[in-house]
Amino acid sequence: MGNLLAGKKGIIFGALDENSIAWKVAERCFEEGAEFILTNAPIAMRMGAVNALAEKTGSEIIPCDVSVDADMENLIDQAMAKYGKVDFILHAVGMSLNIRKKKHYTDLNYDFMHKTLDISAMSLHRLLKTCYEKDAINNWGSVVSLTYIAAQRVFPDYNEMADAKSLLESITRSFGYHYGVRNKVRVNTISQSPTVTTAGSGVSGFNSFIDYAEKMSPLGNADALACADYCVSMFSDLTRMVTMQNLFHDGGFSYTGVSEAVMEKFGSQE
Amino acid sequence: MGNLLAGKKGIIFGALDENSIAWKVAERCFEEGAEFILTNAPIAMRMGAVNALAEKTGSEIIPCDVSVDADMENLIDQAMAKYGKVDFILHAVGMSLNIRKKKHYTDLNYDFMHKTLDISAMSLHRLLKTCYEKDAINNWGSVVSLTYIAAQRVFPDYNEMADAKSLLESITRSFGYHYGVRNKVRVNTISQSPTVTTAGSGVSGFNSFIDYAEKMSPLGNADALACADYCVSMFSDLTRMVTMQNLFHDGGFSYTGVSEAVMEKFGSQE
Amino acid sequence: MGNLLAGKKGIIFGALDENSIAWKVAERCFEEGAEFILTNAPIAMRMGAVNALAEKTGSEIIPCDVSVDADMENLIDQAMAKYGKVDFILHAVGMSLNIRKKKHYTDLNYDFMHKTLDISAMSLHRLLKTCYEKDAINNWGSVVSLTYIAAQRVFPDYNEMADAKSLLESITRSFGYHYGVRNKVRVNTISQSPTVTTAGSGVSGFNSFIDYAEKMSPLGNADALACADYCVSMFSDLTRMVTMQNLFHDGGFSYTGVSEAVMEKFGSQE
Amino acid sequence: MGNLLAGKKGIIFGALDENSIAWKVAERCFEEGAEFILTNAPIAMRMGAVNALAEKTGSEIIPCDVSVDADMENLIDQAMAKYGKVDFILHAVGMSLNIRKKKHYTDLNYDFMHKTLDISAMSLHRLLKTCYEKDAINNWGSVVSLTYIAAQRVFPDYNEMADAKSLLESITRSFGYHYGVRNKVRVNTISQSPTVTTAGSGVSGFNSFIDYAEKMSPLGNADALACADYCVSMFSDLTRMVTMQNLFHDGGFSYTGVSEAVMEKFGSQE
Repeated sequence: MGNLLAGKKGIIFGALDENSIAWKVAERCFEEGAEFILTNAPIAMRMGAVNALAEKTGSEIIPCDVSVDADMENLIDQAMAKYGKVDFILHAVGMSLNIRKKKHYTDLNYDFMHKTLDISAMSLHRLLKTCYEKDAINNWGSVVSLTYIAAQRVFPDYNEMADAKSLLESITRSFGYHYGVRNKVRVNTISQSPTVTTAGSGVSGFNSFIDYAEKMSPLGNADALACADYCVSMFSDLTRMVTMQNLFHDGGFSYTGVSEAVMEKFGSQE
Repeated sequence: MGNLLAGKKGIIFGALDENSIAWKVAERCFEEGAEFILTNAPIAMRMGAVNALAEKTGSEIIPCDVSVDADMENLIDQAMAKYGKVDFILHAVGMSLNIRKKKHYTDLNYDFMHKTLDISAMSLHRLLKTCYEKDAINNWGSVVSLTYIAAQRVFPDYNEMADAKSLLESITRSFGYHYGVRNKVRVNTISQSPTVTTAGSGVSGFNSFIDYAEKMSPLGNADALACADYCVSMFSDLTRMVTMQNLFHDGGFSYTGVSEAVMEKFGSQE
Repeated sequence: MGNLLAGKKGIIFGALDENSIAWKVAERCFEEGAEFILTNAPIAMRMGAVNALAEKTGSEIIPCDVSVDADMENLIDQAMAKYGKVDFILHAVGMSLNIRKKKHYTDLNYDFMHKTLDISAMSLHRLLKTCYEKDAINNWGSVVSLTYIAAQRVFPDYNEMADAKSLLESITRSFGYHYGVRNKVRVNTISQSPTVTTAGSGVSGFNSFIDYAEKMSPLGNADALACADYCVSMFSDLTRMVTMQNLFHDGGFSYTGVSEAVMEKFGSQE
Repeated sequence: MGNLLAGKKGIIFGALDENSIAWKVAERCFEEGAEFILTNAPIAMRMGAVNALAEKTGSEIIPCDVSVDADMENLIDQAMAKYGKVDFILHAVGMSLNIRKKKHYTDLNYDFMHKTLDISAMSLHRLLKTCYEKDAINNWGSVVSLTYIAAQRVFPDYNEMADAKSLLESITRSFGYHYGVRNKVRVNTISQSPTVTTAGSGVSGFNSFIDYAEKMSPLGNADALACADYCVSMFSDLTRMVTMQNLFHDGGFSYTGVSEAVMEKFGSQE
């Protein structure tokens, strides 16, 4: 449609299938004139339909286990071989072993939790550290990671992912400071409405919660495509002085204490 | 340059002279294909150079004292006569009588303070109320008001404007809820770096503070042009699920506790 | 019971009847060894049962319309005549004319709103300014004002009081800075659960909302007596380095995104 | 002095020597009538002077490596054998291997980081999980953990501890929800001024930063004894409806954007 990202090169993590937010981001970045590499965990890529996306957008696929230094180095080396430096990166990565194993928050397994933190939060540090060492991002480049409001307030079903997202947002600020000072690179998180993705659908009671969030949000829940649009704006030059922020993209959910729609449904049983 | 706002109609408050953020917003909106009405207080328009801006952007000028209901109604009526409904509004309005009169924060005059609150904060309510009554904003329209981080943390020289900005941000959330529910209209504030404008230059010790903020911000202070770009992104369809937010546009100042650059200057006297 | 406030002198605004939080604060301060003056608007005192409280606690009653400078000066002068300087003040004052007149938030009357802001928020500034000028508060004295989370997030029925509370919290920070620097006086707000008081009961749909807040709060809603206990802790020397804060006293409501109890009631209709 | 904690039983982590905040907390809890167990890492106890504190307060010492499940279980079992259930716990635990090894934030070692997160943040989860399983805390019991504002804003020298503290605060909210719902147990963090302790003194440029924080805080920096007083208030029944909060105890630093004292020193070199 536009040319907002014309000439920009990037890396997009996390496009599993067409329900993924990252998939929509890739499509929108392509429409706006960007080139990029698609990456995901080797195991996810075998399951995923990412080849179709790669073809459609003329992208190369480079697998990367975000918890493995060598994989991350390989990814960045290949990106630099191809593009020189990159302009934008989407980090849409998260996985909770304790949720998969149905461990209650009060009964977490700590080996699982370390794995969750490593994949869902420290992976952003590993990515940024690797880029920083190799000087892989152009000045005023933009890194966006996806997060959720459970980092601020408790949503019980979100379990340990809340803690992982808090860690992710802290890393965003901490590394954003250093990368900003040295290279004017900006690092932000987008805190997205609950979204029906293949990854998100594992959380229990999810449909009921989606309905709750929809009724609580003055504009309704933001969907994956709207999130992709917002990512485009954050990768563009229009937002180049925004960094170290957590940006709520949620139809107003974050600042609604209670909506009339929720109170109506809540109160009508009395 | 682009066409991000092609076909969109708007109203821009607060373009006094070419140092004004609103002036830059008008120029950038024009470049992106928007049409708009320029407005300001009658007294400001006499002093200002806004005619040059109106000519350059093919805009009409409609004076409006934001503290007068009839003026606001007239403005919205004329906008509707011209455009039907509008798509975006920039509210860049602020004035502190206590600062002008050099009253210390601990010695405020309350008649002055009421005037400050009326012009700097309640004016946003008056604007939105008038639009809401007349149904003057298209669905998914975007209203942006400019604010400052003194609404969250104390900057002594900012005086009562801190309180006015807190009120402004609360009105943004409160009205944003209602306008979102009824018409999907979104309302946000942009919290901008200290900016050298004709209006801002009245604050005491401002140059020294600009330097402090520059050193505290990993990307440096955001200037008026960058703010205009950010406003463009907020008026565009790329951000249509963002509402009721206060968005820091400040080079990372808001999440920097202290920078090495500040500590270096601070500590070097010891 | 204790002697946590032994020897301390104070002023307590807002004790209307035994449902008032301020009434409980007075009782608890008395139990902890404090002496204090009771004050309220002249009109409220005629309606109220405050004489019984004054007798019980050995307190003097001094009427004060918080929107009138002369009343405030008289109150502080009399307090100083009696005590020299005071150690603590409770500001529990709020009134919304637009709510009384059943004006919707999107249709506020601005004369009413000015009155609301004056009584509910600027009254704290007037109080602190008067004390500051007369040097009426001992070093390390403690001023507490009551607020509500609608200052941070939208609760539609709270209407313009949300905006008034935002202003109140900003004044708390702004004046807290100056009074802290000069006299080590600390100023904080306590953000209390919705509480069944004679004043609070005017808000529409209040019972249903109380139930919602109760279910959303891991500890349940905080009641007036618990709030009084918290005020005692804030007036005591145990908290002397806490200032410019907004302290949630709400059973965990503020950091609960959604509770299982709410989702259960919300979802059971499907 | 008082009897605010008369009859209460507790566990205090982290009393290394008389500079420790935990040491002061133990002394103050003892003065207020509490009994408690002192605990620390086995290696810290060999170095520490904790025996003197144990004698003075009539406390038992039970070593516990907070990263070892069996140690934690042993601690809680012994506490229950002695007291039945406990009423309060102070978690004052933190250690950063990357800081010790002088790794810059942009060059963290991830094995070290996992260790840092485990000891400094997940240890709170391990503690609460162990108590929750064994039902070791009385209803309305109070758990306090110490944190720092680097969890919200970047202080570069604080390095990865910022991320660890963010994780700690998230765990506080998450577990606070569940423990509140089941047992009315409240869990909070106190975010303390930078404090000259044996542990804190390892951070580079610390003296200069202490001076900066002192000048930025309207009341000056809070010291360890004031923090102990605040902990007493949080362990007492006066605060029983406060949970899932991060409470700044910092003389107003957290809400001061800039102070006149800092600007004076900052600007005087020009």
